[in-house]
Amino acid sequence: MAQAGDRVKINTKKGSEEGILMPSSDKKTILLKLDSGYNAGFDNKDVSNITVLAKAAAKKKVMAKITQNPDLPTIAILHTGGTIASKVDYRTGAVASEFSPEELLSLFPELKNIANLESELISQMWSDDLRFAHFSLIAKAIERQVKKGVKGIIIGMGTDNLAVASAALSFIVEKSPVPIVFVGAQRSSDRGSSDAGMNLICAAEFVTRTDFGGVAICMHESSSDKTCVILPGTKTYKLHSSRRDAFKAINSSALASVDYKTMEIKYLGNSYQKRADTLSLKPKMEEKIGLLKIHINMFPEQFSFFKGYKGLIIEGTGLGHTPGQAPNKESAIHKEIYPALKKLIDSGCVIVMTTQCLFGGVNMNIYDKGRDLLELGVLSGKDLLANTALVKLSWLLGNHSREETKELVGQNLRGEINERLQFEEDFVKK
Amino acid sequence: MAQAGDRVKINTKKGSEEGILMPSSDKKTILLKLDSGYNAGFDNKDVSNITVLAKAAAKKKVMAKITQNPDLPTIAILHTGGTIASKVDYRTGAVASEFSPEELLSLFPELKNIANLESELISQMWSDDLRFAHFSLIAKAIERQVKKGVKGIIIGMGTDNLAVASAALSFIVEKSPVPIVFVGAQRSSDRGSSDAGMNLICAAEFVTRTDFGGVAICMHESSSDKTCVILPGTKTYKLHSSRRDAFKAINSSALASVDYKTMEIKYLGNSYQKRADTLSLKPKMEEKIGLLKIHINMFPEQFSFFKGYKGLIIEGTGLGHTPGQAPNKESAIHKEIYPALKKLIDSGCVIVMTTQCLFGGVNMNIYDKGRDLLELGVLSGKDLLANTALVKLSWLLGNHSREETKELVGQNLRGEINERLQFEEDFVKK
Repeated sequence: MAQAGDRVKINTKKGSEEGILMPSSDKKTILLKLDSGYNAGFDNKDVSNITVLAKAAAKKKVMAKITQNPDLPTIAILHTGGTIASKVDYRTGAVASEFSPEELLSLFPELKNIANLESELISQMWSDDLRFAHFSLIAKAIERQVKKGVKGIIIGMGTDNLAVASAALSFIVEKSPVPIVFVGAQRSSDRGSSDAGMNLICAAEFVTRTDFGGVAICMHESSSDKTCVILPGTKTYKLHSSRRDAFKAINSSALASVDYKTMEIKYLGNSYQKRADTLSLKPKMEEKIGLLKIHINMFPEQFSFFKGYKGLIIEGTGLGHTPGQAPNKESAIHKEIYPALKKLIDSGCVIVMTTQCLFGGVNMNIYDKGRDLLELGVLSGKDLLANTALVKLSWLLGNHSREETKELVGQNLRGEINERLQFEEDFVKK
Repeated sequence: MAQAGDRVKINTKKGSEEGILMPSSDKKTILLKLDSGYNAGFDNKDVSNITVLAKAAAKKKVMAKITQNPDLPTIAILHTGGTIASKVDYRTGAVASEFSPEELLSLFPELKNIANLESELISQMWSDDLRFAHFSLIAKAIERQVKKGVKGIIIGMGTDNLAVASAALSFIVEKSPVPIVFVGAQRSSDRGSSDAGMNLICAAEFVTRTDFGGVAICMHESSSDKTCVILPGTKTYKLHSSRRDAFKAINSSALASVDYKTMEIKYLGNSYQKRADTLSLKPKMEEKIGLLKIHINMFPEQFSFFKGYKGLIIEGTGLGHTPGQAPNKESAIHKEIYPALKKLIDSGCVIVMTTQCLFGGVNMNIYDKGRDLLELGVLSGKDLLANTALVKLSWLLGNHSREETKELVGQNLRGEINERLQFEEDFVKK
């Protein structure tokens, strides 16, 4: 019988396919890793037979031997799970996490020329299951590593919510003696096209040598393996679901680039936060914060749902708009939307407007819709990304009064807001 | 006393500002159009005094005289409101809608060299107040104009939801003897930097001369006034809140460009729908469809809220993921999310996954999270934009059974889905 890791040929109604049989979480699906590197699922009932072309090779694990090099600095790699930390073990069929320094060096031997490694497992999860409480765990691990005297910290995480985690830690870490750089991978390290190694190695070079002392992200700059970019912690978005250069700065630009061949670090002209003398953390977050994306044909109860929430981010249209006017009978139901918003605000919910356009920002003074919402008490999030606004509001309400929060949410604290947006050139940075 | 339209100087605590006094919808705010063209709001209580520098000039309306030119084709311009159809009348302080053919020709005299005009007011509203029911009104107007024998149809609309309206009409119009092109403006026609005229004129040239018979969008290609692009009806996104070149094709490219100087139409190599012999419309839409954007720290009730909805679009993370696993005690609450989704699906709600990455698409076969969701009965929306998925699902459920809808939602009907996504070059088209 075919087992995970075997090279197989399957025959289906539509034809035959070859690939490596993958472990599948349900019995209805047969999963193949095709030669292109992509996985394809086939309904078991459509598959007439499976032929084993080659059995999986027995895997022999060779561990790198660690010798501390006194000439090199020590850095810490914190693991939270995600593609960067995982590798399908075709022999057992399990997704294995590789995270001890020995295992990391076996996977990426170049690391031993850059730094001595500390390694710590915080959790083993997809970033989709992150909650605000996890950021406290990460903050505690940062504190432990800074106490050990490491020169820099790398946090491995799944890419789906890597940018929102980096935004959250940007607020939590008020100042730091070491750079804290999030690294993910869009392709797992068992694929030829994996970006895990290059992202990790460029991040290790960067945190070892930079005087930057803030929170940032290190990922591929383009679809080639030439450079990684160090992206701003609060202004980055995963703009592609599968490409390795998916992460882009929004209304901002990368802080630096790292050449994978020469390891040259090029600072891109922006001022940045320097290493501080000591670490200062404020890890408290308010739990009850919502996010509501605006779309056409909404119902008033989609707004009043957030009764009891301490804060709400609205991802509005354009310059920061919602439905709420009833210029004709087709939109009569919209008459109930502004009263629903007013009720939330009167009950103490802090509501902040952002824009689903991604680029550009909110300006609620231009159209009467925006002015109506300001009048109700909705606050302008300026050019805050919706996800950055979500963690900022949670963090502010965790550490400040409601009135202080209302003052601070529209102020630039960690590079998350541009007070003046100027775009002369093309706005999408490639 | 200063009146709307006057050039004034105001003194505030922070300094003084000059500009044109704008009509303001509330008494607490004084609104100035600064010389930069942008509006700025000032709290009335912070303003110590207002000096009138120059009174508003009395406005004399000169109407173009219409003479039908038998050598030119006739096109129809349908108005639904928005920036393109509005102009602040500084004399009366009201936002005036200009929409009769005479008024259009007064504003944009070049139009009379392109075509004879029919004009029809459908509504006067911001696109944020669109509901599915408005698309029927637009479809009826299209039917009337096609019966009159026009050569092409232009629909003026607010930009906030222009792309979702073009997607809705793409499904409603099964085939058409004329092109239907949506046009908006990011800056109103009373501003020097207005894009209203150029977008309208390029659209008029295009609908008059093309053999295209589908639904599309005509907007600025870049920040200069050189070319407009004809963007695909179902694959376009407003990617900037204020720039004139805000609209971009996602996982796709423009169908054609129109040179504003030479009026040369350049087709960009994609195949497109040709003019048909007759018009065929299916305007029915299902009303009860929701859209839920995924973020971290969600609560299960954000999912179960959609009980009773006939359809739900999830804007997931990455390749199409939601929270739903509880690998540690911090995410224990996530255990209730998959059961909440299962309950919705069992009650008959059709749930379709899209991605908030915008670029790339959903592939739920790669990670166990995606496979778990497929197993629950969540359908892959492939590379459907979330807003396109919203109107597609509403349209499918309005015209098909639930079972047929589940079959059709992942099939490409109007260019809304790429069966194979291939990105060798940079993915963001400028």
